[in-house]
Amino acid sequence: MADQNIPYKIYLEESEMPKNWYNVRADMKNKPAPLLNPGTHQPMSAEELSAVFCEELVAQELNDTDPFIPIPQEIADFYKMYRPSPLVRAYCLEERLKTPAKIYYKFEGNNTSGSHKLNSAIAQAYYAKKQGLKGVTTETGAGQWGTALSMACSYFELDCKVFMVKVSYEQKPFRREVMRTYGASVTPSPSDTTEVGRKILAEHPGTTGSLGCAISEAVEVAVGTPGYRYVLGSVLNQVLLHQSVIGLETKAALDKYHIMPDMIIGCAGGGSNLGGLISPFMGEKIRGEADYQIVAVEPASCPSFTRGVYAYDFCDTGMVCPLAKMYTLGSDFIPAPNHAGGLRYHGMSPVLSQLYDDGLMEARAVTQTSVFEAAEEFARVEGILPAPESAHAIRVALDEAKKCKETGEEKTIVFGLTGTGYFDMVAYEKLHDGKMDDYIPTDEELAAFRARLPKV
Amino acid sequence: MADQNIPYKIYLEESEMPKNWYNVRADMKNKPAPLLNPGTHQPMSAEELSAVFCEELVAQELNDTDPFIPIPQEIADFYKMYRPSPLVRAYCLEERLKTPAKIYYKFEGNNTSGSHKLNSAIAQAYYAKKQGLKGVTTETGAGQWGTALSMACSYFELDCKVFMVKVSYEQKPFRREVMRTYGASVTPSPSDTTEVGRKILAEHPGTTGSLGCAISEAVEVAVGTPGYRYVLGSVLNQVLLHQSVIGLETKAALDKYHIMPDMIIGCAGGGSNLGGLISPFMGEKIRGEADYQIVAVEPASCPSFTRGVYAYDFCDTGMVCPLAKMYTLGSDFIPAPNHAGGLRYHGMSPVLSQLYDDGLMEARAVTQTSVFEAAEEFARVEGILPAPESAHAIRVALDEAKKCKETGEEKTIVFGLTGTGYFDMVAYEKLHDGKMDDYIPTDEELAAFRARLPKV
Repeated sequence: MADQNIPYKIYLEESEMPKNWYNVRADMKNKPAPLLNPGTHQPMSAEELSAVFCEELVAQELNDTDPFIPIPQEIADFYKMYRPSPLVRAYCLEERLKTPAKIYYKFEGNNTSGSHKLNSAIAQAYYAKKQGLKGVTTETGAGQWGTALSMACSYFELDCKVFMVKVSYEQKPFRREVMRTYGASVTPSPSDTTEVGRKILAEHPGTTGSLGCAISEAVEVAVGTPGYRYVLGSVLNQVLLHQSVIGLETKAALDKYHIMPDMIIGCAGGGSNLGGLISPFMGEKIRGEADYQIVAVEPASCPSFTRGVYAYDFCDTGMVCPLAKMYTLGSDFIPAPNHAGGLRYHGMSPVLSQLYDDGLMEARAVTQTSVFEAAEEFARVEGILPAPESAHAIRVALDEAKKCKETGEEKTIVFGLTGTGYFDMVAYEKLHDGKMDDYIPTDEELAAFRARLPKV
Repeated sequence: MADQNIPYKIYLEESEMPKNWYNVRADMKNKPAPLLNPGTHQPMSAEELSAVFCEELVAQELNDTDPFIPIPQEIADFYKMYRPSPLVRAYCLEERLKTPAKIYYKFEGNNTSGSHKLNSAIAQAYYAKKQGLKGVTTETGAGQWGTALSMACSYFELDCKVFMVKVSYEQKPFRREVMRTYGASVTPSPSDTTEVGRKILAEHPGTTGSLGCAISEAVEVAVGTPGYRYVLGSVLNQVLLHQSVIGLETKAALDKYHIMPDMIIGCAGGGSNLGGLISPFMGEKIRGEADYQIVAVEPASCPSFTRGVYAYDFCDTGMVCPLAKMYTLGSDFIPAPNHAGGLRYHGMSPVLSQLYDDGLMEARAVTQTSVFEAAEEFARVEGILPAPESAHAIRVALDEAKKCKETGEEKTIVFGLTGTGYFDMVAYEKLHDGKMDDYIPTDEELAAFRARLPKV
């Protein structure tokens, strides 16, 4: 059944791996809006940002002119341990669906962090080490980012303090143990170890935490501890820059076999995977060299692109971080408790927000039950048990492939399979037991969160 | 630091993947002893075996003359979804250890079953489908084999009934959910759904089960249900045959870069991984074409090679299976309850038993605390969180690499990294909390089990 010329899995040679990250901002006609100081509402200077972030990462954050940033040798060496990741031709899925569509996925789950997050974690740990820091702090929700950062810090022998959203800390003890295996300290958030944590606990006793709240705690500890900085696994420009390795490898693999995709699909929470996957394709699209249909997929229970507003908002609940202009639901938005599919951040990468606002990409929201059904359908023929996050992209890829069956179109579809679901079996169990349900916030609920956006 | 000529990960091209399995029995001067009918003590005929196993698998089980068995196209296609697996040069580990040894590992964990077990599961499911069967039954302990078989059955749309050792069923609900994701039914063993299960429950109320007992239940159901057969994930000749794909790929990858290993190390429970990994190297050794030091590593708490006897024994607790001549501790031996490292089977593959008895390989037993310490040391630099089973091989590889540091020898060490430990975090947690301990059975205890061996 296979196309003779194209293998099941396209692996680049080491020598074909990207030597530079690609900075899509350099090609954007409308640049993403700058981060603002939450007090003065003036653009954050490099000096202000350096209190929170490593110096080289600040430079990357602010750089919207250089299209290529060299990947340091130490990071390239680490990449070689688990990259290139395969670009997989989903022959078995195509056959099962009897679709004329040609389906490819870039699989980022073949590393112990279980996702693409390691691509940026190792970069951020490297720059922290290079600056002579002792350690870094961060937050984690489902745990992929925390795991990735723990691995990266262990490699460079850096201290790593993770604030883990309390509900995940309790429901995912195994993720926590993976982080401990790599030597990280893991604190459930909100905690009484920070001022902002104590404040949130006092205002909302019994809260199970949120990403925005864990960010506030991690930033407070980074700023208050000599030799520490804060690192973030999504949203920021620097993260999308590092994650461009996904898209660059994808493009190199497609080019190697002269494959021209029609459609590129990625799940979107804060935007790290989607931004990385699409960046070189988006660059071509902006420069008028090629056209692609680019689709962001988000949970219907946390619909920042499809039902949010494009406005300046806080990145965290404690309002200690800079303001970012992004598609947002409001910084105190938290998805309904039955939401198990990840991608729970209230906002969206400023880069992707601008691209979306410019009409260069589209977005779709999907319900979690339909997402888990797609995950299972995919797993049973392609052999990979996907992360719920990744399954958002699978849902739309399946829908599109089924449409092609009806229309007879031979579309080439590429989607990002960001990771594996081995630590998400509680959610799969709910699906098997018929206990999974969906919650879509009402317009009134969203309006209430929106009303609390900062006035900028 | 890397050797310019050898990449971090050696991937074969699809066209370089093995077209045949290698049957080491064809080259063995002393063939493994035949399976015996437990009633008559006569060699099992193909007809007798066919009541339990699929016909083509029976033929493979009994074939000790053909060195090469073609891999059917359908299986080769499935292999392409997750194979070739990488042969990894452990550059980072070498640097951290400052050893002159060159360390390679064949990593079989990059698939959802999390281990090499899928190599044989897909073959056994294929032959069951080809024979027109409705389904298969099996047992699983830690769960890797059950997961692998569930994936394989889902792919070929076969029914799959798994008896899971009760203690694992309860302690590893996530493994169970993975199997359910692939549509398998999972029953804790011993259960009241079989005669042998009810008998064991009556004799040992409150038992948490064993592999040998789950095998008995699975065989009873297979034999008693029209259109079903029993499949096994280790020990049998046919399993080692399928697993030879590991060794063949390893050898092809080494040959491609003109690397000559000095030492090959694998963990050994029933022998599926070790037998597969070493078979082409063992073939060369038997034929006098090359010499290799081949080391089996087993748990000190379940030391069938190092402290067992080479004798005919039952493969299961219920004594419904044929007798196999193997290194065994006795069919009712169960490792101490604190044992968390897998490799808990009381016996050993008849093929490996004969090779060991012939002095063609050696064996070492290691304590579980030392195994988990090795696992963590490895994970922190190589980025992969290993399965406890695999970590037995890591332990010896680390010991050997450290010896090389002392002696200055530039040994080339290859070991099998059979899988990942994502479902074993309870054991890692014990290590982190200082609650892991070791239990080595006394000579008196082993003698008591030995006294109950069948008289053949």
